[in-house]
Amino acid sequence: MKINESRLQQHFEAMSMIGKIGSTGTNRPAHSADEKKAFELAASWMQDAGMKTRIDNFGNLIGTLEGADTTLPVLMMGSHLDSQPYGGRFDGVAGVLCAIEVVATLKENNINPKRNIEIISFADEEGWRFNKGLFGSRGILGKLEDGELQRTDKDGITREQALKDFGCDITKFKESEYAPGSIFCFLELHIEQGPVLDIANKPIGIVTGISGPLWLTVTLKGQAGHTGSVPMPLRKDSLLGAAEIIVAVNEIATQDTSAPTVGTVATINVFPASRNIIAEQTEFTIDLRDIDLDRRHRYEAQLMQKIESITQKHKLTYTIKEDTNSEPRYCAEWIKAIIKNNCEALHLDAPELMSGPFHDALALSYACDYGMIFVRCKDGISHNPLEYASYPDLALGAEVMYATVLDILKK
Amino acid sequence: MKINESRLQQHFEAMSMIGKIGSTGTNRPAHSADEKKAFELAASWMQDAGMKTRIDNFGNLIGTLEGADTTLPVLMMGSHLDSQPYGGRFDGVAGVLCAIEVVATLKENNINPKRNIEIISFADEEGWRFNKGLFGSRGILGKLEDGELQRTDKDGITREQALKDFGCDITKFKESEYAPGSIFCFLELHIEQGPVLDIANKPIGIVTGISGPLWLTVTLKGQAGHTGSVPMPLRKDSLLGAAEIIVAVNEIATQDTSAPTVGTVATINVFPASRNIIAEQTEFTIDLRDIDLDRRHRYEAQLMQKIESITQKHKLTYTIKEDTNSEPRYCAEWIKAIIKNNCEALHLDAPELMSGPFHDALALSYACDYGMIFVRCKDGISHNPLEYASYPDLALGAEVMYATVLDILKK
Repeated sequence: MKINESRLQQHFEAMSMIGKIGSTGTNRPAHSADEKKAFELAASWMQDAGMKTRIDNFGNLIGTLEGADTTLPVLMMGSHLDSQPYGGRFDGVAGVLCAIEVVATLKENNINPKRNIEIISFADEEGWRFNKGLFGSRGILGKLEDGELQRTDKDGITREQALKDFGCDITKFKESEYAPGSIFCFLELHIEQGPVLDIANKPIGIVTGISGPLWLTVTLKGQAGHTGSVPMPLRKDSLLGAAEIIVAVNEIATQDTSAPTVGTVATINVFPASRNIIAEQTEFTIDLRDIDLDRRHRYEAQLMQKIESITQKHKLTYTIKEDTNSEPRYCAEWIKAIIKNNCEALHLDAPELMSGPFHDALALSYACDYGMIFVRCKDGISHNPLEYASYPDLALGAEVMYATVLDILKK
Repeated sequence: MKINESRLQQHFEAMSMIGKIGSTGTNRPAHSADEKKAFELAASWMQDAGMKTRIDNFGNLIGTLEGADTTLPVLMMGSHLDSQPYGGRFDGVAGVLCAIEVVATLKENNINPKRNIEIISFADEEGWRFNKGLFGSRGILGKLEDGELQRTDKDGITREQALKDFGCDITKFKESEYAPGSIFCFLELHIEQGPVLDIANKPIGIVTGISGPLWLTVTLKGQAGHTGSVPMPLRKDSLLGAAEIIVAVNEIATQDTSAPTVGTVATINVFPASRNIIAEQTEFTIDLRDIDLDRRHRYEAQLMQKIESITQKHKLTYTIKEDTNSEPRYCAEWIKAIIKNNCEALHLDAPELMSGPFHDALALSYACDYGMIFVRCKDGISHNPLEYASYPDLALGAEVMYATVLDILKK
């Protein structure tokens, strides 16, 4: 193996001490003092690997390895070092540390790249602090939205204030943006955050794309009444209607057992929420994802018909709010092919799979070709202190990434 | 008509001013200053009707009209003057004011009863303040439970403190209890709190009994996971399981369309309640009621089978907590017959119906025979400022009650 598995493990172990909670957990909020400490540690490793480092005005840590021709579009790798509030040691961290390991290995092998290589630890990928994520990766592409800086965290601190406290100059965002065409391609390694590789007993997966979620909030309105005194045929029970729709979401998402479609209802709120008053109003969210946008559109149409017929049956009114409607973003075929070749060279039978969750790569996909490598994680658990990927698996991922970077540098 | 409809209406209107919220709402908590004011007003009307009044140590207002033989068991009528926090003008009030109208009419007609007649406005029928109701009606029968006095309201005030502030002496509960055999029978008039009479276009109903609710809290446990990355066949989605059980509760309760069975799920809580994390745990309540206990038991058994099979299908574990398991309590046939005769004499086609909700009569049913008269309420709305019963309907109810009392006094 070209990369140094023992050094990689040491980096993971050192990083896991920053914002550590419990024995295996991490709480490293975006733009926080702990994220700053993590940046300083990662920057020291980048410097060891020959990179120059800086923190830009979006709060991204950027390491640059200068290539022979610094005017060529850069080969960018990265992920994030912020964590969920009750998160694990690998989500995001894997992509940053494995990228550093790749560059360190390039240096040890005296390989001078033809183009600049950059590693970015993107600011606030997770999004929970200000309820909006992919901040740094959207920032460098000029894709922030109006009002984002005025969003507040649970303590009432605005994004603007948090960035200032972090040392960023929000009046100089433009200086931190990347011009169109300045990124050659983007590579991200990430733990799968799902159980597919673990169940298939495969350490590495090749991502086909990031499926686009459709996020809806559905509100059903019926009529309150005493649960003891309103006869069943006279009811307008909004929770019963919601239950039938939840069952329908599952039926729709599972109708083609060969498809990777996922459909979920994971939040529900009832008013007035008294055990002996029929639910007057029920609000719930729907999350529908598919790598095949046509199929997702067909399923969405089926869902709308179901909501219509179920609410009619129970004499309910309804509103549907579309919170997010993202299209799937596919990985570049040529990068997938390189990753696949390198997996085969390592005798890895790496399945292709779609990514349900977002990643920084989603933002980058609008600026350049991208590829992603998944590393298996135990039982598919993520966003939890129990999140676990083994060091041998992570080392394999870094090795595939190293070989992939070498091939990309030939382009 | 024997009773005085205009006086009755004036009493309702005067009572509705105490604890008034909005234009038609009432907020008159148990053991509160507003309930005390309501007691003082009702007591003045009781006194006008020739009754002696007192407030006992449970916080009940009691009016007594002395009969020829004060050693005979008493004929008791009553209901309550406390309200829901966002309640209406008729729930409970109707039973107290119509009973006062009956005694006032006895006095005007110079009728001296052979036995004492008592009217009680029972303390804390509603139960929301300390999360346990029927306090006064259980109190007089020696049926309070351990720890009841230490229950606190939302401001941290204990029942004990509230009773003291109300002027009660909790060391003298025994003095306020009724000895076994000392109550001849109990009559309660109440608004239906359901839509049956309104839809049937009948002003008065004869209650057959109070159906026993079975109250369960079901907790389903599955496994959290990212909604985008856990394939459908690998999920353990506790909310999906809950939705199927909610649908099953409805199917079970409606299988015999000729039965008055009602089954409801009206509260549900999900953990962690994030739209992109599969629901690890879902807790919900089930409310199942029937006037036929055998049928309710059969349905409960069906429900248990359904919970077992649904949780197996979705690989969930579950616990079921039984919060309440009340048996139906039937009205006395002889009182029902008297009410029915008097309805017919008034050319009222009064349907028989069960009461889903509790009433103070439920507590009294363990001490004596009881009967209940329902008055239609608009659209079945109750526990809401929109609650409405017309004064002509209430007057009819009082008239039926008056005639019923005359007949009972012959016993």
